[in-house]
Amino acid sequence: MSYDNVTPAPDDAPPLGVGMVGYAFMGAAHSQGWRTVGRVFDLPLSPVMAAVCGRDPDAVRTAAGRLGWAAAETDWRALIAREDVQLVDICTPGDSHAEIAVAALEAGKHVLCEKPLANTVAEAEAMARAAHEARARGQVAMVGFNYRRTPALALARRMVAEGRLGEVRHVRVSYLQDWLVDPAFPLAWRLRKETAGSGALGDLGAHAIDLAQHLAGSPLAGVSAQTETFVRERPLREGGPDGEMGQVTVDDAAVFTGRLDSGALASFEVTRVAAGRKNALRVELNGTAGSLSFDLERLNELEFHDETQAAGEAGFRRILVTEQDHPYLEAWWPPGHGLGYEHTFTHQARDLVHAIAAGSAPAPSFDDGLQVQRVLAAVEESAGKNCVYTPVEHHPATV
Amino acid sequence: MSYDNVTPAPDDAPPLGVGMVGYAFMGAAHSQGWRTVGRVFDLPLSPVMAAVCGRDPDAVRTAAGRLGWAAAETDWRALIAREDVQLVDICTPGDSHAEIAVAALEAGKHVLCEKPLANTVAEAEAMARAAHEARARGQVAMVGFNYRRTPALALARRMVAEGRLGEVRHVRVSYLQDWLVDPAFPLAWRLRKETAGSGALGDLGAHAIDLAQHLAGSPLAGVSAQTETFVRERPLREGGPDGEMGQVTVDDAAVFTGRLDSGALASFEVTRVAAGRKNALRVELNGTAGSLSFDLERLNELEFHDETQAAGEAGFRRILVTEQDHPYLEAWWPPGHGLGYEHTFTHQARDLVHAIAAGSAPAPSFDDGLQVQRVLAAVEESAGKNCVYTPVEHHPATV
Amino acid sequence: MSYDNVTPAPDDAPPLGVGMVGYAFMGAAHSQGWRTVGRVFDLPLSPVMAAVCGRDPDAVRTAAGRLGWAAAETDWRALIAREDVQLVDICTPGDSHAEIAVAALEAGKHVLCEKPLANTVAEAEAMARAAHEARARGQVAMVGFNYRRTPALALARRMVAEGRLGEVRHVRVSYLQDWLVDPAFPLAWRLRKETAGSGALGDLGAHAIDLAQHLAGSPLAGVSAQTETFVRERPLREGGPDGEMGQVTVDDAAVFTGRLDSGALASFEVTRVAAGRKNALRVELNGTAGSLSFDLERLNELEFHDETQAAGEAGFRRILVTEQDHPYLEAWWPPGHGLGYEHTFTHQARDLVHAIAAGSAPAPSFDDGLQVQRVLAAVEESAGKNCVYTPVEHHPATV
Amino acid sequence: MSYDNVTPAPDDAPPLGVGMVGYAFMGAAHSQGWRTVGRVFDLPLSPVMAAVCGRDPDAVRTAAGRLGWAAAETDWRALIAREDVQLVDICTPGDSHAEIAVAALEAGKHVLCEKPLANTVAEAEAMARAAHEARARGQVAMVGFNYRRTPALALARRMVAEGRLGEVRHVRVSYLQDWLVDPAFPLAWRLRKETAGSGALGDLGAHAIDLAQHLAGSPLAGVSAQTETFVRERPLREGGPDGEMGQVTVDDAAVFTGRLDSGALASFEVTRVAAGRKNALRVELNGTAGSLSFDLERLNELEFHDETQAAGEAGFRRILVTEQDHPYLEAWWPPGHGLGYEHTFTHQARDLVHAIAAGSAPAPSFDDGLQVQRVLAAVEESAGKNCVYTPVEHHPATV
Repeated sequence: MSYDNVTPAPDDAPPLGVGMVGYAFMGAAHSQGWRTVGRVFDLPLSPVMAAVCGRDPDAVRTAAGRLGWAAAETDWRALIAREDVQLVDICTPGDSHAEIAVAALEAGKHVLCEKPLANTVAEAEAMARAAHEARARGQVAMVGFNYRRTPALALARRMVAEGRLGEVRHVRVSYLQDWLVDPAFPLAWRLRKETAGSGALGDLGAHAIDLAQHLAGSPLAGVSAQTETFVRERPLREGGPDGEMGQVTVDDAAVFTGRLDSGALASFEVTRVAAGRKNALRVELNGTAGSLSFDLERLNELEFHDETQAAGEAGFRRILVTEQDHPYLEAWWPPGHGLGYEHTFTHQARDLVHAIAAGSAPAPSFDDGLQVQRVLAAVEESAGKNCVYTPVEHHPATV
Repeated sequence: MSYDNVTPAPDDAPPLGVGMVGYAFMGAAHSQGWRTVGRVFDLPLSPVMAAVCGRDPDAVRTAAGRLGWAAAETDWRALIAREDVQLVDICTPGDSHAEIAVAALEAGKHVLCEKPLANTVAEAEAMARAAHEARARGQVAMVGFNYRRTPALALARRMVAEGRLGEVRHVRVSYLQDWLVDPAFPLAWRLRKETAGSGALGDLGAHAIDLAQHLAGSPLAGVSAQTETFVRERPLREGGPDGEMGQVTVDDAAVFTGRLDSGALASFEVTRVAAGRKNALRVELNGTAGSLSFDLERLNELEFHDETQAAGEAGFRRILVTEQDHPYLEAWWPPGHGLGYEHTFTHQARDLVHAIAAGSAPAPSFDDGLQVQRVLAAVEESAGKNCVYTPVEHHPATV
Repeated sequence: MSYDNVTPAPDDAPPLGVGMVGYAFMGAAHSQGWRTVGRVFDLPLSPVMAAVCGRDPDAVRTAAGRLGWAAAETDWRALIAREDVQLVDICTPGDSHAEIAVAALEAGKHVLCEKPLANTVAEAEAMARAAHEARARGQVAMVGFNYRRTPALALARRMVAEGRLGEVRHVRVSYLQDWLVDPAFPLAWRLRKETAGSGALGDLGAHAIDLAQHLAGSPLAGVSAQTETFVRERPLREGGPDGEMGQVTVDDAAVFTGRLDSGALASFEVTRVAAGRKNALRVELNGTAGSLSFDLERLNELEFHDETQAAGEAGFRRILVTEQDHPYLEAWWPPGHGLGYEHTFTHQARDLVHAIAAGSAPAPSFDDGLQVQRVLAAVEESAGKNCVYTPVEHHPATV
Repeated sequence: MSYDNVTPAPDDAPPLGVGMVGYAFMGAAHSQGWRTVGRVFDLPLSPVMAAVCGRDPDAVRTAAGRLGWAAAETDWRALIAREDVQLVDICTPGDSHAEIAVAALEAGKHVLCEKPLANTVAEAEAMARAAHEARARGQVAMVGFNYRRTPALALARRMVAEGRLGEVRHVRVSYLQDWLVDPAFPLAWRLRKETAGSGALGDLGAHAIDLAQHLAGSPLAGVSAQTETFVRERPLREGGPDGEMGQVTVDDAAVFTGRLDSGALASFEVTRVAAGRKNALRVELNGTAGSLSFDLERLNELEFHDETQAAGEAGFRRILVTEQDHPYLEAWWPPGHGLGYEHTFTHQARDLVHAIAAGSAPAPSFDDGLQVQRVLAAVEESAGKNCVYTPVEHHPATV
């Protein structure tokens, strides 16, 4: 017997139309997430890749075809207005997040917004406010701190929540990359304050801060920081320094320390000039009952030290986070068959779809994104004021 | 402007209809490959997931919907006969490979067949013969040694071919898993000789042998082997030993040594009872000019020692195989953003599509699969004959 | 033929009488160094373990016999006065360093003083002044930052000095231990400000600061710091909390950032409550041409990334620092036969003996020790002043 | 108060005069052991480094002075005859072991003999016989498989004996070095059959075999082997190939598999041409309840997987073998302060002194050394007979 036209619906779940703005690195990664999520996970709603939006008509059409979107738009307002779009997925640089997200929420759409939530605290506050109003209407707004969805880090959070670390005393996060070591690397949008807001800080530091707070289960109370731009001029265009040069207006690196509300000490280092470190997001938490350690360059592994074991048998244990009962792993391959970077976007899509179907608040929320934004602002303020300890406000935007 | 219905064609490439037989673990992995390949790579043909085949009508229909196949079939002969299928992808246990593959080739279809190529040398010879005949008609037949498509191992092969290791003297491959440590694990098809052909040997050893020969660039001339079945009876059904027990008729583990035609010494160990080793496929080659080392549990890394460097500065160098100029990486994420297990199937699909479009012989061919089968047979023969050194025939089936 | 009484002189070098004050952990380690150095290295002077000094007559006599000292003293002034002592090796807690060192130098003896040089900057200044005066008389004074003599870190320094890292931009040092996680650990001398000066800061931070400056080849210009004492009361005596408790008057941990004169950013974390980290002194330097990474828990290894290699072949290379042309290794075992912690003291003894014989200034000098002391003071000052950036004076004490 | 002339006796223990034959690499390592053991451990007898023996009068006198021996001899018979020598420590090449050891035992001396015990089974049998006879007179004979005394491997043995691994199924040992990669390396004594007996096999394989049997607690029942000499001619003298060349008469590498009496499968690989591997003695045991893994290049670490833990929390745990309750560690430094290669000789000396004082049989005994010799012979026999499985005799020499 043959059964033709079985697809496209992976199951009988009602459709959830997704419209994505932006189709560069993040757009491609999100697309892979949307394309895959319903093929792997059981979902209450069936995501449909309705339309993608970009300014260049030819390029966006090509991207739609390549990435698997059913339609293409050149105006994000038109995308938001589409009836087949219930969820707007924002993958643009930070300077446009606030405008698009607020408009989408006001138009009654759910929103997924890439991190950092915005380029300023004021924008982030407006977004959090809009999210709160939309929440009252049953809409959902999530910020894309995708690394929370790395199975190893989701397991880390679960273990901390279960008390396996006891009281957390130290949180240490470094996020080291090296793509700006070469002074001939051109002045891309990520190197301009007007588009990116900040440099390594907003790009890498936002992840570092979110993970520190999320994993430890406590927000930062204050920070002390230094930032630096080692290469202050770069060629305007790719191909080298023979042409015009432009000013780099964001940081290459930031080092900062902080205290969590819980009393834990935190230390951070983010940089894009650490030669040889490609994507070294390293997280370690030390508690009274145990410690956890993670490196994104080995993303399928979580190291756990159980302080309650006899010293003679204790040691950091390399958990290969590929077991059926590890977060997200019930849907994937047998033990030992590792996942990759892009799977975090599939998992993000999964959790968001569940939140939308359940009408429940997703995490990380726009409030979480705003909190990170406030820490970023405090870091910049401290760096500008001789490292002085700078408190971070906590109360939600809507209060 | 809106551009609706941009999809499904990722570009203007002519379609290549794929029909897949089997939809368990391997079928799911291949599906992810087919679903993804055209979204990521530039392809000369556009793969269409035409139909999937399985014996249970309900289950196969559900699988088709879940995995993204446009139609479902319950008879593999019907699948082969479909006009919209040009490529038959065989993901069934080894005992049905020969019959399906030969029929598909005779029906004028291209074939991708999971490893090991067959359960016996005779079957594999028939398949290689059919592939040769089909080759004359422009058809392509590939065996699914997907680990060759791990970027790190593809890079390893490239470096060996470039002479970076000099003359290879040692090849050492171990493939350690642990899912059979528990004696309550039931007597699944992989534990019966009639379905699986052999145990760890055919399942893991086939990969180990293929990689040893492929990476070193030389076939095995002979082997000496021991095999063992530590748990000889297992429950017939999941849930434990209270019910009926059945005989395990395949090996749990095999250890063997060998010599390559090149003169290199090889050592192998494959097992499914190495407690704590989940998917530890480890490969090391030592040559006169350098060494390479790999572990599938850290699949984005390749370790390289350059013997031509001064001893005081030399050492195994951990290459994170995520750079743009690494094999397959031009299509993926920025440096340091690792891939996972399933990407090997996307890469396999890519290379197969290119071979079909170019009418060129793919690698690994059915001849390569036959050669591995002969080594497996020699291993079993040696194990049965007091470890005596057992030569491996090389000449292709068609001679 | 027999040749009896060949020893004690390992060769015909004139003797150098050593007198050691203190015989606890550091004293035992120094003793192993003195006992071994002349048996392994070619030396211009032959160290003689003349006498050890401690307050308890029985205990010091036992220690002398056990550790191999020819005589025992109960008054350090008597030790200094001995004619058979030319070098005074100070292994006492920090509160007695200044008095003993200054007296020894004034008595015309060479001095080796454990780190940190002193408990206050004023003491350290007095010691540096005494060292300068003694230097004019041909005496030598060295501070015991023994980790500089780990072969891997000596190699690291050599590579930085040779320009292999280019311009250093990041220095990151953490020194993590965990012996104070247990709140029942008693209030030992290292937990009292009056004896130890500070906690993790002086104990571990002194090493971290010295290595950062030494390896990068540039002093710290200023720091911003936070310190914390997580367990503020501890039992006065071993055996648990049933008895009297006392106040912990030093830090458990310190996190701080800094800038080197060279413009590099530095980050530091030292703690004695990082569960599972036993002796994790980790150092990483990132420069424009390469990076280096080290972990004291794997002390025979140095990781080097060469940024001048093609990206596709680059990676952190694990140099096993056991080759004949690595620092100090000409005297030890064949490649791959690793050394241990205690060898740093043998190497320290070797370098000190050479400096004494040559009449040359040893490194690290008391000035270097003073500089570290100033950084420690700046760290404490910053921690007490809301993390404000606190400059560090550089000019030597004698100016 | 002063207490002069405290030394040389570390305590009131009666002296044990040691006489050592040979003073090259092994002699230097043993000397470091004898020099250190009484300074670190509490011993029932106080070792005195009475005399060292070598053929060249000047060289042995220099060595005695350098290494700390009180006298020098040029005839080993004279050394054995010395009244101040109760223990003869044999550090010569394998071809002289039997003659010296048997003579020493017959002269009433205790004997420590470097591994491999001899160059042939016949010699080893004679030595074992002499040891048995001497044992009846209260003498002790030990063979120097020093790696058993690496704390991590001593801990491994303890854990296996405690049942932490359950039933051992796999033992895998490789010992990889690379000092013969260079074809210009001259034809040293270790490359001639008449002096060394065999190549990598006797040098590295003896360690590998002893550890496999010792750790698993079961002797090898039989083996199947292949050996190879990749570089068959080498310069007679250092400095390169311009001069005379000589035949290499031993193996460069051996690969072999085996079965233990217990039923476990074993695999072995030893080589001196594995480029980049300096001293990679790697041992792994997989049992029904857990696994252990070790690498001599990281000798302070032991990895343990506890199969009885929930899969979601299990993983190889890196035990830093530096805790007070780890074997031998009670006498050394605080946790995390690692030991080196040479400490195995100090530990060997400690255990031997205890055995002599207690009059108890030491391990590894000459019988153990003979058993290893029989395995080595079986390996060579199998390698010469087409890999055929070759049983190993077990019964002790004296039966």
